[in-house]
Amino acid sequence: MTENERITALDLGDGSPQSPETAAYFAKCEEKLGLVPNVLRAYAFDDGKLRAFTQMYNDLMLGDSGLSKLEREMIAVAVSSVNHCFYCLTAHGAAVRQLSGDPKLGELMVMNYRVADLTPRHRAMLDFAVKLTKEPEAILEADREALRKAGFSDRDIWDIASVAAFFNMSNRVASAVDMQPNDEYHGMAR
Amino acid sequence: MTENERITALDLGDGSPQSPETAAYFAKCEEKLGLVPNVLRAYAFDDGKLRAFTQMYNDLMLGDSGLSKLEREMIAVAVSSVNHCFYCLTAHGAAVRQLSGDPKLGELMVMNYRVADLTPRHRAMLDFAVKLTKEPEAILEADREALRKAGFSDRDIWDIASVAAFFNMSNRVASAVDMQPNDEYHGMAR
Amino acid sequence: MTENERITALDLGDGSPQSPETAAYFAKCEEKLGLVPNVLRAYAFDDGKLRAFTQMYNDLMLGDSGLSKLEREMIAVAVSSVNHCFYCLTAHGAAVRQLSGDPKLGELMVMNYRVADLTPRHRAMLDFAVKLTKEPEAILEADREALRKAGFSDRDIWDIASVAAFFNMSNRVASAVDMQPNDEYHGMAR
Amino acid sequence: MTENERITALDLGDGSPQSPETAAYFAKCEEKLGLVPNVLRAYAFDDGKLRAFTQMYNDLMLGDSGLSKLEREMIAVAVSSVNHCFYCLTAHGAAVRQLSGDPKLGELMVMNYRVADLTPRHRAMLDFAVKLTKEPEAILEADREALRKAGFSDRDIWDIASVAAFFNMSNRVASAVDMQPNDEYHGMAR
Amino acid sequence: MTENERITALDLGDGSPQSPETAAYFAKCEEKLGLVPNVLRAYAFDDGKLRAFTQMYNDLMLGDSGLSKLEREMIAVAVSSVNHCFYCLTAHGAAVRQLSGDPKLGELMVMNYRVADLTPRHRAMLDFAVKLTKEPEAILEADREALRKAGFSDRDIWDIASVAAFFNMSNRVASAVDMQPNDEYHGMAR
Amino acid sequence: MTENERITALDLGDGSPQSPETAAYFAKCEEKLGLVPNVLRAYAFDDGKLRAFTQMYNDLMLGDSGLSKLEREMIAVAVSSVNHCFYCLTAHGAAVRQLSGDPKLGELMVMNYRVADLTPRHRAMLDFAVKLTKEPEAILEADREALRKAGFSDRDIWDIASVAAFFNMSNRVASAVDMQPNDEYHGMAR
Repeated sequence: MTENERITALDLGDGSPQSPETAAYFAKCEEKLGLVPNVLRAYAFDDGKLRAFTQMYNDLMLGDSGLSKLEREMIAVAVSSVNHCFYCLTAHGAAVRQLSGDPKLGELMVMNYRVADLTPRHRAMLDFAVKLTKEPEAILEADREALRKAGFSDRDIWDIASVAAFFNMSNRVASAVDMQPNDEYHGMAR
Repeated sequence: MTENERITALDLGDGSPQSPETAAYFAKCEEKLGLVPNVLRAYAFDDGKLRAFTQMYNDLMLGDSGLSKLEREMIAVAVSSVNHCFYCLTAHGAAVRQLSGDPKLGELMVMNYRVADLTPRHRAMLDFAVKLTKEPEAILEADREALRKAGFSDRDIWDIASVAAFFNMSNRVASAVDMQPNDEYHGMAR
Repeated sequence: MTENERITALDLGDGSPQSPETAAYFAKCEEKLGLVPNVLRAYAFDDGKLRAFTQMYNDLMLGDSGLSKLEREMIAVAVSSVNHCFYCLTAHGAAVRQLSGDPKLGELMVMNYRVADLTPRHRAMLDFAVKLTKEPEAILEADREALRKAGFSDRDIWDIASVAAFFNMSNRVASAVDMQPNDEYHGMAR
Repeated sequence: MTENERITALDLGDGSPQSPETAAYFAKCEEKLGLVPNVLRAYAFDDGKLRAFTQMYNDLMLGDSGLSKLEREMIAVAVSSVNHCFYCLTAHGAAVRQLSGDPKLGELMVMNYRVADLTPRHRAMLDFAVKLTKEPEAILEADREALRKAGFSDRDIWDIASVAAFFNMSNRVASAVDMQPNDEYHGMAR
Repeated sequence: MTENERITALDLGDGSPQSPETAAYFAKCEEKLGLVPNVLRAYAFDDGKLRAFTQMYNDLMLGDSGLSKLEREMIAVAVSSVNHCFYCLTAHGAAVRQLSGDPKLGELMVMNYRVADLTPRHRAMLDFAVKLTKEPEAILEADREALRKAGFSDRDIWDIASVAAFFNMSNRVASAVDMQPNDEYHGMAR
Repeated sequence: MTENERITALDLGDGSPQSPETAAYFAKCEEKLGLVPNVLRAYAFDDGKLRAFTQMYNDLMLGDSGLSKLEREMIAVAVSSVNHCFYCLTAHGAAVRQLSGDPKLGELMVMNYRVADLTPRHRAMLDFAVKLTKEPEAILEADREALRKAGFSDRDIWDIASVAAFFNMSNRVASAVDMQPNDEYHGMAR
């Protein structure tokens, strides 16, 4: 990110860390990822909010789970496709490409997961995540049973639901403030 | 809640605290609210997840903000009405009734906020939250400008967006696992 | 209702009876229900219209039917939930609470009937009523067969359809004129 | 109608009058219209229901109003077009053709009223009726004001709302029971 | 068409042929159909565009196919009903009436194909065409299999898809420019 | 494309040219583009259909127009984003990246054109194309006027409409037959 590019449409500071702890966290991102994801800079105006966000994000996307990291990123992108979220499709589309080593899979999650050549497990997982996104009021026991039949445990169902729900939140924060993804994502793992 | 009533449709424990810290937190809820909200019991199977949830929830709904606590609860309920979330409409509908002392206001947020007799500030706030819920991809600068014209600062816009987005997450976790609200909410502040 | 509260957004009189017959009818309501439902005051500007409305209403909701009065009120509320009708959700939500003695059932009909713990008969009945509300053009023989399989006769199907259809009408009259429910409903049978 | 053609998908009698009063009413229809509209035969299984229906119908569509009979039929058809109701589009499409002497106007109401060459009065009237049909929860004072600006009185607004709402009911009864329009309508006033 | 009636809302000439070849084509239409369809006059401002349109149209609607001409017209009208296209419903509704000799079938395609008394072949064909119109992203192998089970070959599936897709194009060109159908269609084959 | 990869889900040949003319055309594509777009191979089973398709495509996308080729590709992608068409988003997303030299612009068209930093001309053009895609029945003179105010001539409006409409067709053919884009597109112009 060039210094003077805006991160969001709101006037909430320039995305600099407000504490040594945050500065160290950003440095670690830079080192591991080669960039500080703009979502973190967007939250940087308030250390408490940043910590709450990263704690939940890291638990869901990087913590222990019966779902692989790639599976969680696939959910993230399929949900973001419904919501047409530019930030999340860009950042997490890149993650799917990287984790899978399959650029086409990343594009399919962005464009239309339904036409991807998916295992029954992945189709069940994404069908649930997308139904939960589009019509949460219509999720019933039959939907949970479909996941169980596809081999998911109840704890896995919690994780599928939580990741899908989390991106329904993040998509909306990003859209509400017009969050800009780091340009570096566009070319990654193509 | 009767001991043997289920909290969710998933088999993830009985909602008991898994650590002294959580037990203390639940005791504090019992003391202050007269009950432990079932959402906390639902998350209790994993202390890390529970902490991430409560940290974000408490920051958003109880922390410093240009929005009053009632305003944040109004957003919560208007969003949950779009998503027809039984858990959140029940628990946060009760909160609107309690904080406002106006049972009818709680019902209006549950049923149709549009026909409530709202101040321009509240109408702008809820129109934004509901548009963000229904068509996040269509939020543009004009929508943010409408909030600014209604007197909201950029920080307030962040908070409106964050609360609306948070309940788009919570509605979906609750619907995905069929989370049951504590029966006590139904009769509160009527 | 306080004398000077408005019943609708239209300037069509103050809701007083225009004939001795109507005055007697309102007195009977007052005696039996403790109030004159505002919908009747809304129609009171024209005795012919009031009579047509009450005749149809009373036939459908109180007349002979294979559906219990509670079942007809459940349909009324589930339909009104789709249409987010403040008047009908308030008045008929109270009716479900009163007739069932189960405040939670009333709330479930208002918020999301799908997640209620329903008998197969009631689920079939409400699924039909809500599909008829949301996509009437898609009702086919298979939908009627589903009702027959759930034990309903053809006459019962007529009644389910008629009640659901009637509230699709009433919801729209109420929303079109911003009809205000009597405040007394909010606290009833909680 | 040939004797042995079915009127609805329900087994509720053959549409014959159940009382001398109804027989006389059907005879009058036959004389004035050249047919007994199948909707009346559909309700004929129960004299009380038939009377309630015709009383409301006749008040709304034939009674005193600031709206002409043609205007009320235009609303009927524009609403029925949203709901894709075969019965009502057929019967009331014919009525628009007959009352207007303009077959093309009837087709426009059936197919897409928006592209008709309408007076501002008629456009305002139909825009309100169709919005009330598609999203009744979103009707606000601004919508009523648009009607007043187009020259409608508050009593006219009541009538527009009532006719639009009535056909939202009738469309659903007809769709629920697969009501068949009399074949004669198809060729009328072409 | 009276000389001075407009064909579209765009100022792109008066619909006269721009070349002897087009003049001859229009004369042939006049001779065979009794009129020059306004869609051809609308394209007449540019001979290349007109030729591309007629070449595709003639191949799809008149060329060799496992689908009869009536079946292709039924698809055209069912698709145009979803898109509420006045031009295509009028012109192709007339074609269904003419080819079938059944005015009611034409009306059913215009109003709601679902309630027509269709063969399984025709229902499968129209269900596919309408799903492809409303949610093309959700067409999966199961939808193609349903056509195969109804007796369609893969080449037939291509044709069903192509005709449905073509009218999704034509409906939008017609709506975008407010194309007016020839008045003669309204009375044809009633 | 590897020889043995399937192009569509239909059994309509292997995509080889059926005539010397088509073989020459494919060779020209290979030479100019480095590949034969799979859409051409998909149509190759029938030379007449292929010619009709390419004639219309080439006229619209490459012929004379007040719209630049990039503008036409932007419309193609914004429309395909609404319809979630994997083939068209992939092939025409690459075209936007190539013609603009701006990979981010391609992604924005795929993901959500609304949040791109567009000129008023481009926003008006894409808003029209997307409204025409989502609700063609609601396009009125005001929509055409908005294009004229943005500087477009009536001929330009025809072209915007025609390109948007064409991709509503192509998206549906591609989705109906599960057309596979050439893998080469994914990495182009990143």
